[in-house]
This record gives sequence, structure tokens and C-alpha cells, in this order.
Amino acid sequence: MMLRVVTQGAEARAELGRIGQRLADTQAQAEQVREILAQVQQRGDQALVDYTRQFDQQELSPADFLVSGSALDAAYQQVSPELLAAIRLAHKRITEFHQQRVPQTWVQFAPDGMVLGKRYTAVDKAGVYVPGGRAAYPSTVLMNCIPARVAGVERVVMVTPPGAEGAVHPAVLVAAQECGVQEIYRIGGAQAIGALAFGTATIPWVDVVTGPGNVYVTLAKKQVYGRVGIDSLAGPSEVLIIADGTAKANQVAADLLAQAEHDPSAAAILLTTDSTLAQAVAQEVAMQLEHHPRRLLTEKSIAHYGLVVVVESLAQAAELANEFAPEHLELAVAAPWDLLPQIRHAGAIFLGHHTPEALGDYLAGPNHTLPTSGAARFSSALGVETFLKASSIVAASPASLHQLGEAVVVLAQAEGLHSHAESVRLRLEP
Amino acid sequence: MMLRVVTQGAEARAELGRIGQRLADTQAQAEQVREILAQVQQRGDQALVDYTRQFDQQELSPADFLVSGSALDAAYQQVSPELLAAIRLAHKRITEFHQQRVPQTWVQFAPDGMVLGKRYTAVDKAGVYVPGGRAAYPSTVLMNCIPARVAGVERVVMVTPPGAEGAVHPAVLVAAQECGVQEIYRIGGAQAIGALAFGTATIPWVDVVTGPGNVYVTLAKKQVYGRVGIDSLAGPSEVLIIADGTAKANQVAADLLAQAEHDPSAAAILLTTDSTLAQAVAQEVAMQLEHHPRRLLTEKSIAHYGLVVVVESLAQAAELANEFAPEHLELAVAAPWDLLPQIRHAGAIFLGHHTPEALGDYLAGPNHTLPTSGAARFSSALGVETFLKASSIVAASPASLHQLGEAVVVLAQAEGLHSHAESVRLRLEP
Repeated sequence: MMLRVVTQGAEARAELGRIGQRLADTQAQAEQVREILAQVQQRGDQALVDYTRQFDQQELSPADFLVSGSALDAAYQQVSPELLAAIRLAHKRITEFHQQRVPQTWVQFAPDGMVLGKRYTAVDKAGVYVPGGRAAYPSTVLMNCIPARVAGVERVVMVTPPGAEGAVHPAVLVAAQECGVQEIYRIGGAQAIGALAFGTATIPWVDVVTGPGNVYVTLAKKQVYGRVGIDSLAGPSEVLIIADGTAKANQVAADLLAQAEHDPSAAAILLTTDSTLAQAVAQEVAMQLEHHPRRLLTEKSIAHYGLVVVVESLAQAAELANEFAPEHLELAVAAPWDLLPQIRHAGAIFLGHHTPEALGDYLAGPNHTLPTSGAARFSSALGVETFLKASSIVAASPASLHQLGEAVVVLAQAEGLHSHAESVRLRLEP
Repeated sequence: MMLRVVTQGAEARAELGRIGQRLADTQAQAEQVREILAQVQQRGDQALVDYTRQFDQQELSPADFLVSGSALDAAYQQVSPELLAAIRLAHKRITEFHQQRVPQTWVQFAPDGMVLGKRYTAVDKAGVYVPGGRAAYPSTVLMNCIPARVAGVERVVMVTPPGAEGAVHPAVLVAAQECGVQEIYRIGGAQAIGALAFGTATIPWVDVVTGPGNVYVTLAKKQVYGRVGIDSLAGPSEVLIIADGTAKANQVAADLLAQAEHDPSAAAILLTTDSTLAQAVAQEVAMQLEHHPRRLLTEKSIAHYGLVVVVESLAQAAELANEFAPEHLELAVAAPWDLLPQIRHAGAIFLGHHTPEALGDYLAGPNHTLPTSGAARFSSALGVETFLKASSIVAASPASLHQLGEAVVVLAQAEGLHSHAESVRLRLEP
């Protein structure tokens, strides 16, 4: 049986620690990415042409980068009516969720005439990275473009590696167009991140770069961070399920495999109070793997980063979950809302037996771009906020300056900043 | 005359571009920081002891890192009553501002039984870096610790380099205690950031690291970003002032110098429609510099990164300001609220002739930790949000799963994710 079952607390902690640190980019990869970014910054489009030949085996000239209007049109003929309807349903639900609680500009007026506030504005330009590779990901398009649109970003640009025949998958092109995004460049990898950060003759530089990718894309995002904003540094995906005896083994097993099938580095963890369920899930996983279309990849993930822990109590499970701070947390227990207050760190929480993570991956509404590798300790899902920024607003009246000025002078002097004090003093002069 | 006055649009753009890119950390510095972080990760406290000897010329054992209770107590006797009162006034005003619009947990209940929402929680532990060096910065303490406290962070830890005699400035210790922070370690530089990211036997690892520092501190924050959250990558400070003929030359000059006196790399820029004011400000800057206590440093900044541009209109000034995206923007014009809508990118905006930036630096209320080097295009001031994170909440009912399940299956199949579809199908079975 491939899925290990662990019953000792110490062993469980050690294993969870190991799995939590499975993301290991190397210094050599970072060097390679540094070189790619430097080339893109110096040589622009020509570097993109060269890297696309090298990494994607496609011969594109800069004029070919942009997906043509006819390819955009044709894409609608190439997806099934069912898929189009599903994309539209997802678009509607994700939009509605992201429209909730968008930060709004505010000012407040103090009695002494001081006006303070925060003014929110959208970034001018956003760049969205959509991975190619193993599959087409229209859901990634929706989850990145919709928050940018809701934020009010005027120009949203997408980059995605060209497929085997040089084309972009029609489902991706349809999803983009449903979000009102038509500017799509067939460039992938670290070089695409470089293009969005520095700009080339063909591809505009942007203010914020979002979207998931492989380790090279992630390292590139880390290196350009500061010059542009980024959503987060995404590692391999992970689910942690807390289940009691009321959970069904086949459903839990499918949920674990739904994570494992993403990537050989994905992690799928079950913490359960029920040792019978633990064994049943392990058996179900083996069974469901037998005819799995991605069996090899999924087995690898389960073998390396799959784990079942039999815990003594749901409280212990919550504690272990908080230490792991999973990207996805399922509470497959009889009373999930009662367990929720014990959870401190998780990217997204799925409550109850009728809420498979897949629902949230596609169209429940919340964003599926979530903090991984323990980053849920300190960060949140991609959201409208990713594409907004606030400017503080301060407008003092003569009265308020007179009331506060002396304290500013005292503090400025304590910090040895002469002109800070002077800038106030000169205004307090009669 | 040291402060250059430029009247040609093209020259102004070139100069603003040069100033905007003045932040230049080197590959060698990044390597050095990588080595420091690796040493701290491997050798813990001993690495801190060694680097403190090397960089701060202090011989501290791990037991000496923590500022003692008696030093904390003594600090209150070492600051003047005026300074204590000013710190308390600043604390009150900054707290009140940061208590506005704190993101709140919400859930919404759909008619079909689906519950969606966002649950905000504070990070468990935060680490605040407070620079030493040229001066003591109690304002930095307040601006970092108060938002952490308002967010509800349970453990706030401070690190700051030991001064010339090994002590931390009493004003810093008082400001920290006013924020309820007593856990202060006398460690600075990149090694302090490493300690907060990895933890040592003496210093706890934290979830979020905030606070300004020199280029080594900033590079260290960039390198540990992802393992911990950070506030931002702070570059040298900058002010851009838009002034018309109603501005007073001596006040504008003092505001420019208040920026320049921070750091030889600070930038101080004036855009004005009034060429008489331009000349008068340049003269005032020269005059105020004559007896400036930090004359050498401030002259350097003014000479390299000081600039006056005579613009044709306030609209042109706004356009140039948006391209520069300054950390601090003063609108020293007759009708600042009328100009505000034309501003898209600025960290903080100070409106009118009675609002010197120094007011915002210390106690107007908004945070003084702001995006620099053009980062205002995509990021915001440090805030309560820096110490909060949201977990998405999804709880489906049987009815909602039945309504949405088929679309999830269609999307999962389009993305080639078999178990995603299966996890829903198994739950739709009768």
C-alpha cells in the first residue's frame, strides 16, 4: 500500500515537517533564471525568440507572439457548448464573490479641520501568467483575470507558453475573452516574467505580475519582485483533510488524489480520528489509482508526499494543521463549524462532506490562487487587493498644524532631523 | 547653486528616470547577504555573535541579545517629559488611524445553502526591524508595532543593532513599551533578518518581518520573502512636491531638505508652474543648507538627487508625478483637492500649504512606511493588513453541490484532472 499511515505523534510531526519543506529550488536554478532575466532586459524580443526556440521548440518571430484575432474568434468554435457554459457559470460566480468587500476610498474630517484617509486606485497594467505544459487551465485564466477586472485594471495582458503546435488551447482563449482580455502573448517560462517586468519592443512592462508556474517562473517572480508587484510565490499544491468517522472513504480518497494528480510534488494529507477510516482511505486510494489516467505522476506524489495520520482528537488534528498551514484544508467532520475556531492558518477552508476542494478550484467563487508551503501563516488568496493600492491622504488645516506642530518638532529633534522640525516651524511662524 | 533647475520636458523626464532608478544593489551585496543568511540558518546564535562583533563592534553573548528589564525601565527616566508626551500623542493618533477599516471576517448565505466568506486572522508572530546607525527612530517603532498590535498579533518581537556603547536608544525602548513590545533583541543587519526568518536558540522565527533598513537589510528581506511575509522592499526615501505660485519658497525648501537629510541617496524633487518660485526655492535650499547640522550628507543628496522642474501646467506636473510614482507627494498648490483626481500613483499625498510631510512622518496618523522607487505604482503603505491574512470559506449544501457539480465535472475534464471530477461525481451519486 503506497499511502503511508502513521499513528505516532512524533513521527507525524517529522513527516509533516518534511512534506512542508518539499519545495526546494536550487541555487543553480536561481542563477539560470538570473541569466534569462538579464538577457530579456538587454536583448528584449530577440531573447524571447531564442528562449522560445530553446525551451518550447517553437520558431516564433516577435510579430507572432500576439495571439491573432482570428485565433481568438476560432477558439469559440473549438470548445463544446457545455464547456462554454461551465466557463460562463464559473465567471459569473467568481466575479460575484470578488465584488464583495472591495476596499473603498475613504476620508474622515476631524473637528480641527484635519482630513485623513486612504484613496484606492487600480494599477495601470497587469500581467497574468498562465501555464501550459501538462494541460490547459482555463480556471487559472478566470482566477487571475477576474480580480484584475473587478479592481478596474485598464490593461490586462496574458502570457502563456505556445503548445506543441505553437497554438494556445482554445479553452484558455475563450476564458480570457470572457474576462475581456484579448492581449495574449505566446511566451512562457522565466523569459515571459522578464518580458512583463522589463518590457520589450513587443510586450509591455506591467505593474503587477500574477499567476502560477513551474520553479523557473516562481524564481523569476521572486527576482523581479520590487520592480513589479507579484501575487505570491506559488509552490506545489497541497491539501490537508481533517476527517472523523462520518467521512466516506471513497470521497476522501478522491479528494486526496485530486491534489496528487496536479504534480509529482503535490502533497495530500489526511488527519483522522478514525483508524478504520484511515485504512479504508489508503485502500481506496490504491483502488482509484489503478485506472487513473495520470497514474504514474499521481502515484509518485502519493508515494512521496501522501500521508495519513491517525490522531487522538480533532483538537490535535487542528494543531497539526495549524503547524502545517495548508493551502487547502477540508473539514470532513460531522460538525465542521465547531472545529473552525480552532483553525488559525489555511489558505482556503472547505467545510463538511458536501464540499470537495474541486468545487473551490473551479467555481464556488473564492480564488483558487492560494498560499502554499506554509505561506498561509502570513498571506492570503490572490484577490482584488492584488491589483489595488492605496495612497494615504493627509490635509492639515492651520488649526490642526498649530495643535500638533510642537510635538512634531520634539520628535524630529529626538531623531536628529533638523529640516523636519524646520518645515513645521516655518509654518507656525505668525 | 547646487539644486538644479530644469525647464525642458525631455531633460526633466530623463532626470526623473535617472533619479527613480537610483536604488542599485549589487550582485556582490546579494552574495554577501546570501552567505550571512546561510550562516545564521546553520550556526544560529554563534553566527549572530560573530557578525555583531564584525559589523557592530560589540561583544555580545546570546544571553545579552535581549534588552534587560532594567534597561527597559531606565529608558523612561532617560527621555524628556516633552518627548514622552509627543510619543504618546503620536501613539494615540497612529492607533486611531489604523483602527479604521480593518478588514473583518464575513460570510454570506446563498438561498441554495452555499456559504461563502473570508475569515481574517492575525499572524502568530511578527518581527520588527528598527535601524540604528545615524540616529534613533522611535517613529519607526510606532509605525511598525502599532499596526501589528491593532491586527491582534500576540507576539511582537523587535530587533535593532546595538549602539556605540552596546545600548539601544531610550526613545526607541520607550516607544516600544508604549506599544506593549518588551521583547527586543540587540541584533542588526542582514543577520537579524536571518534570525527572524529561521529562528535561533535565542531569537524566535516569526511569520512576518517588517521595518526599514540599509541595502543589506533590504536584500535579506527579499531573500527570505516566501519563507516569511515582509512589508515591502524599502529603497531610499523620496519626496516630490508639486507647487504653484501660492507656495512659499522657504517652506518648500525646508520640505525638500527634510527629505534630503535622511540619506545621501534620498531624492527631493520640485515640479512647479512658477519659474520665480523655482529660483527662490533653489536659493532657499542653499541658504538653509549653510548652517544645517547634517550639511555634508544633505548636500550630497541635493546635488545628486535634487531637482527642480519648471512645468507648463499642473496637468503636466501630475503626469510626471504619476510616471515617477513618488513615496511622498506634496500638493503645495492653491486648490490641492482639485488636483488630486489627476494623481494615480503615490504612497502618501499631502494636500495644501499647511501639510508638511513631516506631519505625516510622525503623527498625522497614516503609516510612514511607504513604497519607494516607483513601487507606489503597485503597492501601499504598511498597514494592519500586513499582519492579517484571510482564509477563504466554502461550505456547500447537498442542493448547491447538485446544482454546480456538473459544471465542475466539465471543467475538470477540460483540464484533464480526473480525480477532480471524480471527487464531485462520488458525492452526486444517489
